[in-house]
Amino acid sequence: MSGYAVWGWGDPADEPRREDLVALMPYVTDTTGVQAQEPVDPVPLPELPPSRRMSTLPPSLRALASEGQVDRARHAFGRSYRDLVRAMAGQVDSPPDLVLRPANEQDVVDVLSWASEVGAPVVPFGGGSSVVGGVEPRGLDAAVSLDLSRLAGLVEVDEVSRAVQLRAGTFGPAAEAALKPHGLTLRFYPQSFERSTVGGWVATRAAGHFSTRLTHVDDLVESVRAVTPVGLWESRRLPGSGAGPSPDRALLGSEGTLGVITSAWLRAQPRPAHRWSGALAAPDLATGGRAVRSLVQAGLLPATCRLVDAGEAALTGTLGTGEAALVLGFESLAAPLGAEADLALELCRDAGLRVLETSTPGSGTRGEAGGAWRSTFVRAPYLRESLLLLGVMVETFETAITWDRFDALVADVTAATTDALRRVCGGGTVTCRLTHVYTDGCAPYFTVLAPARRGSEVAQWDEVKAAASEALAAAGGTITHHHAVGRDHRPWSDRQRPEPFARALAGAKAAVDPARVLNPGVLL
Amino acid sequence: MSGYAVWGWGDPADEPRREDLVALMPYVTDTTGVQAQEPVDPVPLPELPPSRRMSTLPPSLRALASEGQVDRARHAFGRSYRDLVRAMAGQVDSPPDLVLRPANEQDVVDVLSWASEVGAPVVPFGGGSSVVGGVEPRGLDAAVSLDLSRLAGLVEVDEVSRAVQLRAGTFGPAAEAALKPHGLTLRFYPQSFERSTVGGWVATRAAGHFSTRLTHVDDLVESVRAVTPVGLWESRRLPGSGAGPSPDRALLGSEGTLGVITSAWLRAQPRPAHRWSGALAAPDLATGGRAVRSLVQAGLLPATCRLVDAGEAALTGTLGTGEAALVLGFESLAAPLGAEADLALELCRDAGLRVLETSTPGSGTRGEAGGAWRSTFVRAPYLRESLLLLGVMVETFETAITWDRFDALVADVTAATTDALRRVCGGGTVTCRLTHVYTDGCAPYFTVLAPARRGSEVAQWDEVKAAASEALAAAGGTITHHHAVGRDHRPWSDRQRPEPFARALAGAKAAVDPARVLNPGVLL
Repeated sequence: MSGYAVWGWGDPADEPRREDLVALMPYVTDTTGVQAQEPVDPVPLPELPPSRRMSTLPPSLRALASEGQVDRARHAFGRSYRDLVRAMAGQVDSPPDLVLRPANEQDVVDVLSWASEVGAPVVPFGGGSSVVGGVEPRGLDAAVSLDLSRLAGLVEVDEVSRAVQLRAGTFGPAAEAALKPHGLTLRFYPQSFERSTVGGWVATRAAGHFSTRLTHVDDLVESVRAVTPVGLWESRRLPGSGAGPSPDRALLGSEGTLGVITSAWLRAQPRPAHRWSGALAAPDLATGGRAVRSLVQAGLLPATCRLVDAGEAALTGTLGTGEAALVLGFESLAAPLGAEADLALELCRDAGLRVLETSTPGSGTRGEAGGAWRSTFVRAPYLRESLLLLGVMVETFETAITWDRFDALVADVTAATTDALRRVCGGGTVTCRLTHVYTDGCAPYFTVLAPARRGSEVAQWDEVKAAASEALAAAGGTITHHHAVGRDHRPWSDRQRPEPFARALAGAKAAVDPARVLNPGVLL
Repeated sequence: MSGYAVWGWGDPADEPRREDLVALMPYVTDTTGVQAQEPVDPVPLPELPPSRRMSTLPPSLRALASEGQVDRARHAFGRSYRDLVRAMAGQVDSPPDLVLRPANEQDVVDVLSWASEVGAPVVPFGGGSSVVGGVEPRGLDAAVSLDLSRLAGLVEVDEVSRAVQLRAGTFGPAAEAALKPHGLTLRFYPQSFERSTVGGWVATRAAGHFSTRLTHVDDLVESVRAVTPVGLWESRRLPGSGAGPSPDRALLGSEGTLGVITSAWLRAQPRPAHRWSGALAAPDLATGGRAVRSLVQAGLLPATCRLVDAGEAALTGTLGTGEAALVLGFESLAAPLGAEADLALELCRDAGLRVLETSTPGSGTRGEAGGAWRSTFVRAPYLRESLLLLGVMVETFETAITWDRFDALVADVTAATTDALRRVCGGGTVTCRLTHVYTDGCAPYFTVLAPARRGSEVAQWDEVKAAASEALAAAGGTITHHHAVGRDHRPWSDRQRPEPFARALAGAKAAVDPARVLNPGVLL
């Protein structure tokens, strides 16, 4: 069988056909500036080594277990470039021995109990959309992939407090569908929305589509429920608390190392009544950055504030004038948006930006200025597959930095990454956008496009990524703003975090996971 | 000498004189409904047991040490009712053996190194305004109070990112004075503002004056620097990050158990350009609560949203009509406030509230509707001293709860506390206000007034507090929204937090404080 079932972003029906790819070649070459190569056919899956865990499973857990080849291969990867190229090449480096699909929380308790007893590493798996090696059982001996997709659905709605309890394995679209009859929405749209889960969002501190205020899922979390090897970890549902360090904040970003998240209470909201959007052009990213900073430092909280540099504006079809582009959007549940929009435009003009188009503020109108951008955002993972099949190295990485160091970081990281691409790939481009903005800084997000050498993609990317990460670290940025640490970011995460905090985290883990079976190699 | 230097909230010059107190008696009886008793004179300080630590101090640390009687007595208490009555009675239960005042961070390193070696418990002390037994060395053997007041002042200002680094021992007014020349302010005003420090705010997750959005200091923290027995814990300055659980969030609320906070980077802002305020009357607290909920759930983010019940409105002079009062304030750095204010008033009217007065929105106008409230807020700790000297039991406690359980919590807690007052004190009143509001809930804050029995105040209060805390817990609230856990809240905090989280916290502490010298008895 084709490897597509293993590595494709969408359904097999979305699998790109060879003739479509060939037809796409001139467009890709023209748009990306990277010479497209003849498409290769994905290599069929190889035979995986035999599973060693099934016989040690108690009978009650066998019904939840699968040792099927495709199933194991599907759980051997996330969705990073280095994952996709390996899957496409039939290179399944670290398949789990078993995939276990708990049907309820007690199953999770039983799995962790068994795993702690036999010392089986357990890798929690939500949507499998990790781009940092979070779900790959790399370096683990006979690991179990704990697929939480059956622990799905809406548990409870509190319409008075506007909060909802969702099981960990609920995918983004299913969560929205379940909330709709209640007139509620999470309005939490990570790029992986279609292929990621509530539990995965919480475990990795995912970021959604709001550029300000409610940026990470952290801001939506009211309470988390998780199973640990020493018992149930469930916080009280509270709008706020000051009773010691927050138990929820300890689980947020724990990436499966402290417990298996089984459900969470998240704050929901109605759909916005008012929307306004505008598109602007900036001479360059730095100027656009100053404009954006002036907005947030004036107290404006745009729902959308996506600034893309000239290269990326051209690439995504947002703007082809050689200028940077800013897509700005405000939304409101009740209050009219006119004053904010006017002030935003005034501040942007003062900063040297040019207004391209705006929607009319008012009930029901949805600005179309951001339409191209939104469409690109959701389609990007699909597009990436086609590029990859045409021999284009395509990957992203992101960071966050305070405003005082923003310009220098972008310059340094772009230079270091471009230099690495030249060295490793013979060329390529690095573009930058801002995905989230804060009063004290922003989250720059870089996209890399380069000609890959067939068969060497992983080594090539690893070298480029290392150069980029070193530059990020040197410029003072974080190794990740919302893609988590996983196994790929460990070297930089280890250097970034305070050493006593690393010890504290290790001490915390030892206390709740004495057999050290929970996602070993991630974070610690 | 009088005990006033030990327990007074203000400067000794503010000490209430006997004739003033006598003159106040009819007013107190009339206003509080509690019969004022003849003022007692504070009992002189008793001789404290001899200090046992000085001889074990290395010479380099001796210069930082004090074993003075008043100094030790001052560091034996926080500022709760049970602290003040004991201090007034000359009952110094748990004086530290030494007070150490580090002059710089290396001194803190040296103190922790010495303390770990000899096993001396170290209680970090900022402004000493804890109301939960956080700074009292209760049950500790020959403890050291680590007074951080010399580690004060502004270290660095980043005007581009609008962030400032302040040393831990900086008091509120000093922080504001240091920021003023830079055109910045923290706008973080806990009720203890005058007598609390930056380090104390971070260690206890203090809450400021904003009723929404930036409620706790957590929201202002960009980076924290702390000394632990195993090394320096300093996070990178970042506007946001997703690299594992947040190291800052682990220190926020750690109450001196994981390390001694020496400085923090906090997000600052300019003074608001626009202010609007209004005062409204509600038939009762429940109706007012529904109005407030409708505001925040409509996406409004009032800077001030203080709802007080009828009893407290009368008590504080906010409103004497037998109705609940709502003081509402919006502020803005740039955008005009008209639309928000109009919508807020409309929603309040829809909910059955009556508008008493409003300021005119616009540049420079500062609403005066909240004037009485603000003045009461700042003067409350001073007033409390006079009440206490007149035999009035006066204390507060606070919680947070989701909206669906708000009415029931207020009813249950009020009933249980009133019942306890009747049993313990023969009467008294319980009033309630909301200090902070969220889309999914709010923070109710209770004030207790009752006739105290001289000499039995601590036992009386402990019984009332226990009854109130049991009711809070049963109603699903948190044992504290922003007063921390300390030693007083331990029984309820222990039951509230998830058991695996308690184990994780203990594991984390053991890793960074192997000699277990950091504020033992607090949190763990």
